[in-house]
Amino acid sequence: MPQTQSNFIASYGAIKLFGGSSCPDMTREIAEYLNIPAGLYTREVFPNENIFIRLNESVRGQDVYIVQTMCSPVHENIFELLILIDTVKRDSAARINVVVPYLSYSRSDKKDQPRVGIAARMLANMLEVAGADRYMTIDLHAGQIQGFYNIPGDALTAFHILAKYVSEKHIPNLVVCSTDLGYAKKARNWAEKLDTPLAIIEKRRTGNTGTSEALTIIGDVRDKNVLLVDDEVLTGGSVFNAAKLLYDEGAQDVYLAFTHAMLGDNALEKLTECRFKEIILTNTVPLRESRRLPNMTVLSVAPMLGEVIRRAHEGRSVGEMFNE
Amino acid sequence: MPQTQSNFIASYGAIKLFGGSSCPDMTREIAEYLNIPAGLYTREVFPNENIFIRLNESVRGQDVYIVQTMCSPVHENIFELLILIDTVKRDSAARINVVVPYLSYSRSDKKDQPRVGIAARMLANMLEVAGADRYMTIDLHAGQIQGFYNIPGDALTAFHILAKYVSEKHIPNLVVCSTDLGYAKKARNWAEKLDTPLAIIEKRRTGNTGTSEALTIIGDVRDKNVLLVDDEVLTGGSVFNAAKLLYDEGAQDVYLAFTHAMLGDNALEKLTECRFKEIILTNTVPLRESRRLPNMTVLSVAPMLGEVIRRAHEGRSVGEMFNE
Amino acid sequence: MPQTQSNFIASYGAIKLFGGSSCPDMTREIAEYLNIPAGLYTREVFPNENIFIRLNESVRGQDVYIVQTMCSPVHENIFELLILIDTVKRDSAARINVVVPYLSYSRSDKKDQPRVGIAARMLANMLEVAGADRYMTIDLHAGQIQGFYNIPGDALTAFHILAKYVSEKHIPNLVVCSTDLGYAKKARNWAEKLDTPLAIIEKRRTGNTGTSEALTIIGDVRDKNVLLVDDEVLTGGSVFNAAKLLYDEGAQDVYLAFTHAMLGDNALEKLTECRFKEIILTNTVPLRESRRLPNMTVLSVAPMLGEVIRRAHEGRSVGEMFNE
Amino acid sequence: MPQTQSNFIASYGAIKLFGGSSCPDMTREIAEYLNIPAGLYTREVFPNENIFIRLNESVRGQDVYIVQTMCSPVHENIFELLILIDTVKRDSAARINVVVPYLSYSRSDKKDQPRVGIAARMLANMLEVAGADRYMTIDLHAGQIQGFYNIPGDALTAFHILAKYVSEKHIPNLVVCSTDLGYAKKARNWAEKLDTPLAIIEKRRTGNTGTSEALTIIGDVRDKNVLLVDDEVLTGGSVFNAAKLLYDEGAQDVYLAFTHAMLGDNALEKLTECRFKEIILTNTVPLRESRRLPNMTVLSVAPMLGEVIRRAHEGRSVGEMFNE
Amino acid sequence: MPQTQSNFIASYGAIKLFGGSSCPDMTREIAEYLNIPAGLYTREVFPNENIFIRLNESVRGQDVYIVQTMCSPVHENIFELLILIDTVKRDSAARINVVVPYLSYSRSDKKDQPRVGIAARMLANMLEVAGADRYMTIDLHAGQIQGFYNIPGDALTAFHILAKYVSEKHIPNLVVCSTDLGYAKKARNWAEKLDTPLAIIEKRRTGNTGTSEALTIIGDVRDKNVLLVDDEVLTGGSVFNAAKLLYDEGAQDVYLAFTHAMLGDNALEKLTECRFKEIILTNTVPLRESRRLPNMTVLSVAPMLGEVIRRAHEGRSVGEMFNE
Amino acid sequence: MPQTQSNFIASYGAIKLFGGSSCPDMTREIAEYLNIPAGLYTREVFPNENIFIRLNESVRGQDVYIVQTMCSPVHENIFELLILIDTVKRDSAARINVVVPYLSYSRSDKKDQPRVGIAARMLANMLEVAGADRYMTIDLHAGQIQGFYNIPGDALTAFHILAKYVSEKHIPNLVVCSTDLGYAKKARNWAEKLDTPLAIIEKRRTGNTGTSEALTIIGDVRDKNVLLVDDEVLTGGSVFNAAKLLYDEGAQDVYLAFTHAMLGDNALEKLTECRFKEIILTNTVPLRESRRLPNMTVLSVAPMLGEVIRRAHEGRSVGEMFNE
Repeated sequence: MPQTQSNFIASYGAIKLFGGSSCPDMTREIAEYLNIPAGLYTREVFPNENIFIRLNESVRGQDVYIVQTMCSPVHENIFELLILIDTVKRDSAARINVVVPYLSYSRSDKKDQPRVGIAARMLANMLEVAGADRYMTIDLHAGQIQGFYNIPGDALTAFHILAKYVSEKHIPNLVVCSTDLGYAKKARNWAEKLDTPLAIIEKRRTGNTGTSEALTIIGDVRDKNVLLVDDEVLTGGSVFNAAKLLYDEGAQDVYLAFTHAMLGDNALEKLTECRFKEIILTNTVPLRESRRLPNMTVLSVAPMLGEVIRRAHEGRSVGEMFNE
Repeated sequence: MPQTQSNFIASYGAIKLFGGSSCPDMTREIAEYLNIPAGLYTREVFPNENIFIRLNESVRGQDVYIVQTMCSPVHENIFELLILIDTVKRDSAARINVVVPYLSYSRSDKKDQPRVGIAARMLANMLEVAGADRYMTIDLHAGQIQGFYNIPGDALTAFHILAKYVSEKHIPNLVVCSTDLGYAKKARNWAEKLDTPLAIIEKRRTGNTGTSEALTIIGDVRDKNVLLVDDEVLTGGSVFNAAKLLYDEGAQDVYLAFTHAMLGDNALEKLTECRFKEIILTNTVPLRESRRLPNMTVLSVAPMLGEVIRRAHEGRSVGEMFNE
Repeated sequence: MPQTQSNFIASYGAIKLFGGSSCPDMTREIAEYLNIPAGLYTREVFPNENIFIRLNESVRGQDVYIVQTMCSPVHENIFELLILIDTVKRDSAARINVVVPYLSYSRSDKKDQPRVGIAARMLANMLEVAGADRYMTIDLHAGQIQGFYNIPGDALTAFHILAKYVSEKHIPNLVVCSTDLGYAKKARNWAEKLDTPLAIIEKRRTGNTGTSEALTIIGDVRDKNVLLVDDEVLTGGSVFNAAKLLYDEGAQDVYLAFTHAMLGDNALEKLTECRFKEIILTNTVPLRESRRLPNMTVLSVAPMLGEVIRRAHEGRSVGEMFNE
Repeated sequence: MPQTQSNFIASYGAIKLFGGSSCPDMTREIAEYLNIPAGLYTREVFPNENIFIRLNESVRGQDVYIVQTMCSPVHENIFELLILIDTVKRDSAARINVVVPYLSYSRSDKKDQPRVGIAARMLANMLEVAGADRYMTIDLHAGQIQGFYNIPGDALTAFHILAKYVSEKHIPNLVVCSTDLGYAKKARNWAEKLDTPLAIIEKRRTGNTGTSEALTIIGDVRDKNVLLVDDEVLTGGSVFNAAKLLYDEGAQDVYLAFTHAMLGDNALEKLTECRFKEIILTNTVPLRESRRLPNMTVLSVAPMLGEVIRRAHEGRSVGEMFNE
Repeated sequence: MPQTQSNFIASYGAIKLFGGSSCPDMTREIAEYLNIPAGLYTREVFPNENIFIRLNESVRGQDVYIVQTMCSPVHENIFELLILIDTVKRDSAARINVVVPYLSYSRSDKKDQPRVGIAARMLANMLEVAGADRYMTIDLHAGQIQGFYNIPGDALTAFHILAKYVSEKHIPNLVVCSTDLGYAKKARNWAEKLDTPLAIIEKRRTGNTGTSEALTIIGDVRDKNVLLVDDEVLTGGSVFNAAKLLYDEGAQDVYLAFTHAMLGDNALEKLTECRFKEIILTNTVPLRESRRLPNMTVLSVAPMLGEVIRRAHEGRSVGEMFNE
Repeated sequence: MPQTQSNFIASYGAIKLFGGSSCPDMTREIAEYLNIPAGLYTREVFPNENIFIRLNESVRGQDVYIVQTMCSPVHENIFELLILIDTVKRDSAARINVVVPYLSYSRSDKKDQPRVGIAARMLANMLEVAGADRYMTIDLHAGQIQGFYNIPGDALTAFHILAKYVSEKHIPNLVVCSTDLGYAKKARNWAEKLDTPLAIIEKRRTGNTGTSEALTIIGDVRDKNVLLVDDEVLTGGSVFNAAKLLYDEGAQDVYLAFTHAMLGDNALEKLTECRFKEIILTNTVPLRESRRLPNMTVLSVAPMLGEVIRRAHEGRSVGEMFNE
């Protein structure tokens, strides 16, 4: 008896790539990787601040990927993404994939005190209701955020990219150090990969009111080179305190590796004061050349996103990219 | 690096066209335009008035278009459409498109007084819940009704068809006149297209109880040929009053152009009394040959619908049909 | 330790009763039972057949019951019900209960052949999406239709009312007979209640094409009085054939009992020809006095509905009404 | 004008078949019929009884069929199915079809007494919410259960398979007998197909408390061979009582035919005591060779399921398999 | 028989009023009207711009009203509203009412050109999915936007407030003039209320490219005092051109009345140049004292909102406030 | 002006407490705390393993709390809970609260490898779709699981109960030790509360295949008393290895504290071998007296659940129970 007919994956139409206004360079890099032009659209902001989008080309019956990171201005970028989704949905796209290198509100992921909301789940609802069929993102603050989505997604990590870079530096006498207890498990993955010991910085509320914080290092860093790891840097305050403590405790060179450079106003200053030997980060949040410190190495996630988009479009395994 | 694989639109399967019992001629015209046979089904009405539908052919994995206008009997036609949708859904159609030349309940589109509903939104919900994936319709009473639908749709207009016909008549000394203030903006589009002045008929409640209406013309019509425009004619009362006023105010010939001939019982009589030079309308609501007045010109929207269906099926732009 | 605070049922606000245009007598009877006035509203039908409803009084924060049976014209009545639901929903009713003595499309409850829909489920979806919070109905064609609804409901039966009436007649030598195999199980309940034997009429397709039907009686009816039972009579054809067969097989008097008199055009004639000793039915479908046959006894379900509404409103058990 | 472009059905990608742990033989048979390998996955049960599933191969953009019957352990099997659905959904399958030869909880399909739920509808909701796009099942206890699903499905029957087998035995002097009134209508189909008379066993509650049951046969079985038919056998109690009554009433050989062998602990003993000439059943519920009685004939539904899967995948009519 | 039990409206718990950060004055005014304190909460903006909300008091089982207008910064204000809704939802509020004096994105209410979205519907979906049970807003750009919501709402108007103020000025020889054709119908209501004639300004695209606009006045304004009316002023450009044209055409004094002062950067300058006799507006969008022009009269909608909130909470008619 | 009317919380009716068959003792304790009787129902398991529930009393319009923990047999208990929810929903309960002391599948909370599902989210969907309005649970494996629910909930912790007990023992020279890096942050809360140092056990995959695990202690435990903390114990393997390592590293007495005793077959043996000075746990998973080890102290969470239920029912703050 013959094998049943079709051997091919579902066709979601031709691939279309649109980039939001948050990260034009990322979109360009991905488009180059995929060897396709990015989709064109008209974008206006009206005097009442309303964003208006009009596609220059039809996406009917096509497989659309919308790239938008949730950097500053965060809420405009989120809303622009929602409007882009609504626009391609109403133009009858066959499938809508949102590609969000840096997903905002990921720290608002649980009710850890009474009478707060869970904005990260709400944001997931927004994207789904607007019409997203799939999502892609990088280094979620907590892997559980995947479960906030009912739609399938690719929750990727830049760990392989960052770790490969560090590994090839062959830093002697290295210890991996987590900036806090919450990141300890992922720091262990770093240590495992680089075959180094692990240290962890513990923050504890002190004083009568519990508003001060005391830092201690669990583990040994004296006379070691230290790789401080985290997922995101905002103000630079945490890593500044961590670096200071590490040097105080006798560390030699301290390196910093992290994924999301969601840097606030004075963060670059803080990072400069840290005297890091090298800061290794990615471009999930765009950082203009002019704002980059001399000791920064910015690795691009665009090839990874491009390859995942290609595989998602062609219905091939993404997992095997990472030999998992 | 090579371009990613697929260059084609999503495949929603072969096209299938079914016509409800409201407008067999329209379905036939569209089928001819598309050069495909209309799908066959058995339809019975049981003694308890229940409509029963059984498809004569399978629609599994196919791209189904169901043509049904919402003319009299309105509620049977709506329900028959819902049953058709449910039937093709349960037969595993790949995509269900409803093609509704005249969408009923479009005037029940807002709560403009307390304690009323919004039947047009409810109808949208019904179609979506029954299983429609897309809709097509013509000359909505208000464009906002598109927003009642979460599914994508093509809210088309017969304006291009009607205006082209009028334009080619080269009527001299013409003024476009809106039958009321609510249609003024669309009447302006007519005037712009035909390059004529614009007049507007204002209705105002008068008397102590506000139950009588007084009509006045804003703008100048004396010694002009007038093209009265509207979207829909029901009883003919409004256009009768308008025509009378226009002749009273010294207009020469009065023409009437509108899309939906949802004509009530005495409407034809009323329209006869209006002494229109010509009545130009479309076939979104079927009007038997025998009921057509001698001065009527009925233009078919079927080719437009056929072309839109073709493009929707093939994933090509509909907007470019109208050079927009 | 004291008992926790509230001992009362949830308050859904004051009770409000509205009747659709299908069954004003039923609404009046229920209102009398409840000793409350029926709610008033304005109802118009526009020239485009659209139904317009405007409530004369606010239902904000109240517990609304809408009575509408699905008799002829079926689709208008269904749509009017949907519009009433939408209207009270948008006027912020606290809870919306629909009371449908006769639920239409109940025979379209499964795909018993390929390429048909399941209109009864679709109708359930419509009522839920329009905004109904609860439903009440009587003698569903199949009890499983309750499962088409995700909202809670009271699927009542007129069996107790009809059976009590027959029981009190003390007909000697009685056999209960089901009009077909599908009703056999419910006929058994009649036989159990009246403590009589059971007979069943079997219909079988015959001939090469399977289009003719042959009737046989399974069980013994000779020289017996027979109570023919069913849930609904449409054309009268089935009961006519059944009665004829019963008389042919030697039955003495034949009685007919059923719930829903959804009588088609010639049904009364057919019923007259059946020579039933007595026809016992209910008013779930209104039957004007002038159309009632001399041998008809119409029993009202209004007190039962009234009592169920009262209990639903007050949060008391409905089951205990029937000692179940 | 040329015919519109595509002539093919929608492509849901390549076919993928996964079998749950309930019925590996059925999965193997179907895979052989389709001439494809069954999909592989890792399955573990953790010490907290949680089931863990990891697919060994990607299903992105593919048309997935998951075979799982709801035999013992029922709730593990249901949950494993839900987890399989969730897993292929999150791996971006194009379409998810669940193939459930025996659907559990089908007798909990209505509120036939106060204060009970409708578990069969709840189960339908579970499968839909988990992500199933279509379902297939065999011999539902009530056809209306199809209406519990909003997704399309193929509610198949093993009647053709069983009846063909019986028909080819040419048993002389045969009467079909339904085990109870609820199955009378389907028994009539047997009788029609085999061209035999019909008898029905009536169960009635007796005694003051209504807790005992009395059985009677409606129809004539003396000196006849009898084919007892039902959809499901659980304890064997009903068929034991039926067989006993049939022999008592003078039947010659009694045969038993049914679909689902959901046999409880002592059911095989009971069936042995029944002295059936032959027991004809299917493999919708797996029955190990060692538990089969000598007089049992187990017919496989796998080729039918395989053919329906093939047609569903290729978008061809399923109805025409049965000449309907 | 006694009347059924409860005579009261549904209890949604005690009233709770929270104000977002967009319009603290409005919240304060409403709280004063209702004679209740506004609810307190902690609000922080993290360095990644994420908004954090923590209620200082529990809202379990209470009837919550959240006041937030969608003025600048629009997207922060929308998102803050969504977070507030999510927060009170997760704190188990009994009912969540959003009070949005000025609803943003109301002009993105239809697809009037291909390949655009309908952001106003998307926004409605966002509010519903976040958890809003009811909404209140003022002077929607189009009444149909009510139909974008499935939840009930009070779409109020400031027309009564503005018209009463103008009426009491007894301006002689007055003509009402609509700023464009789209507002003509509402301008007619003004004219009806003030018993004046109506004029309308027509905008028409001119030139080969259709990018310039020509303005004409339909109706007579010479030697009249003119009341120019609109719903919203953004840049002031439209009213500037209108005022200029009116003065050019011989109007005496020109007044301006509108609801929403969503004033862009240079709008106040433009409004100054218009030489309006008086500008009458409301506080739906806050306008600091320092930015108010000398000829501006700002009327508060807070008492109206307060009264509607009170009635909504107590389940009393809102419609009767307006004698409708 | 007077304050608006109602000052009370929403009334969800009288409180009703039902306990599933998983934890009758817990239900009894809670009922005693609340001083109300637990609701009665009939429960049967049919020969096809289907669970049947029939409430003995009506819950119309009432505030229902269903207590069911997800201990062994896990899937029966989950399904019984779903059936209970469906049953009270269809009996028109006003509000349905599920109280799940131990929530199963909480470790399946993210896709940490390709081609797995997220069963914890699926379970949340099941509970919501079945009809739950609120949930309560204790010590979720990850706080983010709260975000899997769209309904409000109380994600409680037994930390206060356990820590208070330990604190009152005044163990000298104590170090808190986390069993692994994932629990490090919560272990820090223990250390903060008890004012002790913190140690953490690090597990690392070793060898070429990464299948062995090596344990090291980060931090100092020599000559200390150690409190090993975790959320759940399954096989006892992890804590056995941890205890062994601690003693090897020179710890004096080792205590174990955790919440959920979801103990597998040989777990008690393992725990015996650990030579813990004391094992402190709760009754979220029932542990029969006969299975308790001599060194076990089982603390009851029933009073906490009872108090939270009382407050949820009365609309009072739960947060203030914990002074947060």
